[in-house]
Amino acid sequence: MSHPTSLTIMVLSDSVGGTASNVVHAALAQFPDVDYELKNFPFIREEDQLTVVLEKAKRFNAVVLHTFVDPILVETIETFCNGNEITCIDVLNPLIREVTSRTNTMPQHKPGAKHKLDDKYFNRISALEFAVQYDDGKDPKGFLEADIVILGISRTSKTPLSIYMANQGYKVANLPLMPESKLPDEIWQVDSNRMVGLTNEEEMLSNIRRERMLSYGMDPETPYSSKERIRKEIQYAEELYRKLNCQIINVSSKSIEETSAIIIDSLKNR
Amino acid sequence: MSHPTSLTIMVLSDSVGGTASNVVHAALAQFPDVDYELKNFPFIREEDQLTVVLEKAKRFNAVVLHTFVDPILVETIETFCNGNEITCIDVLNPLIREVTSRTNTMPQHKPGAKHKLDDKYFNRISALEFAVQYDDGKDPKGFLEADIVILGISRTSKTPLSIYMANQGYKVANLPLMPESKLPDEIWQVDSNRMVGLTNEEEMLSNIRRERMLSYGMDPETPYSSKERIRKEIQYAEELYRKLNCQIINVSSKSIEETSAIIIDSLKNR
Repeated sequence: MSHPTSLTIMVLSDSVGGTASNVVHAALAQFPDVDYELKNFPFIREEDQLTVVLEKAKRFNAVVLHTFVDPILVETIETFCNGNEITCIDVLNPLIREVTSRTNTMPQHKPGAKHKLDDKYFNRISALEFAVQYDDGKDPKGFLEADIVILGISRTSKTPLSIYMANQGYKVANLPLMPESKLPDEIWQVDSNRMVGLTNEEEMLSNIRRERMLSYGMDPETPYSSKERIRKEIQYAEELYRKLNCQIINVSSKSIEETSAIIIDSLKNR
Repeated sequence: MSHPTSLTIMVLSDSVGGTASNVVHAALAQFPDVDYELKNFPFIREEDQLTVVLEKAKRFNAVVLHTFVDPILVETIETFCNGNEITCIDVLNPLIREVTSRTNTMPQHKPGAKHKLDDKYFNRISALEFAVQYDDGKDPKGFLEADIVILGISRTSKTPLSIYMANQGYKVANLPLMPESKLPDEIWQVDSNRMVGLTNEEEMLSNIRRERMLSYGMDPETPYSSKERIRKEIQYAEELYRKLNCQIINVSSKSIEETSAIIIDSLKNR
């Protein structure tokens, strides 16, 4: 029996398909050599639509994940997959069943209820707008209103980190640090528990900055990417962080998700 | 036997805990009346750490979800949960096992491999920076470089939508529309298949804009929130969309996730 190293994975959902796609990406990250194609089929709400997609799953010999909550769709997909020897992973119902039995409450079976346009949703939207508005120290007023203030020299991922945390509902402002720039007075009024200083390795920053120059079609050997310059910036930043008495995170081998989790964790413990 | 309507759900992970938290939010959205607390325990990488957390799960009578990939941690959590009648949902291993048997490839058992700092990751980071840089029509050059150009009048969620799509790796620029503003010439050079026009219901926009004025501590009855004004803006925008021959999406009852899925779906079909 031959084993393919390439594989079709289908995500079927009554909404966007984001939850199951996340599961696929996390699980398949464990198989760097497996070439897989993720096909997303969002907004399936009728049996007819579902049947058409299931025929495709059979044709592609696909692994199927679904996040259906409507019992009719769940029954349809299970029957079809059992009858056609298709592996079908039900992402939500194990937890839904457990919650039902624990709380004696019936699920409402409403598709895509995760994306309801409630207060939490609008809170997240305005946090995202806040992050864009107060990115890059654009307006120092943001530092006083923010839940979290992120400081860092160039290329320590302040912007994506701010946005990632905004997407979790936090109001985040960030300030780029340069030894030559004057710090806004507001920064000294921010509670140090709400402030985080990002730093990075000299070597890493030098590579990132050289790459950036190259992507602009410029000579990579600029003062901006020189190690002397970077060392000076890192020293300046770390000295400032000590004066401000804020948390310091070295982002050199961390993704924004990891850095964010560390910040939220330490906020909780304060 | 009494059933609580409040419940503790614990997410245990060797990395950030994002995948399992998503599953919890999606499943619990089906129970609007169940009061639950999600406790996230990220970065568990040693048996000792895990045991401490599992004792907490027992004390809270919690439902447990995990995304461990290390066989020793998986074995530890399963043994403990079975022995203590704790419901434990394994989010990743059903799919990991299926991929193993399909492809005859062993998973690498590396924690948090989803967040590896690879090309795809840096692509996402630069897409996020692009979205912030070219938000709100700040620099018309962005329209020519973008994968997707989003147009819309005030309060049609251009910014959060741009950011959400950037987080999926798309380079997105957006342009706010006002009947009084001059359109940048670049907009006529953009391929209409890469352009999306957002619109909304008059009533909805009026409410959102009144709320916004109130949140600024201002009288809600401004020309900005008047229905005549909004009608004029919507007409102007929809006429422009027809001239540009771009896709039109009414966002009135859609979340950004849903709008994004519609745009990506139609990009694929073009």
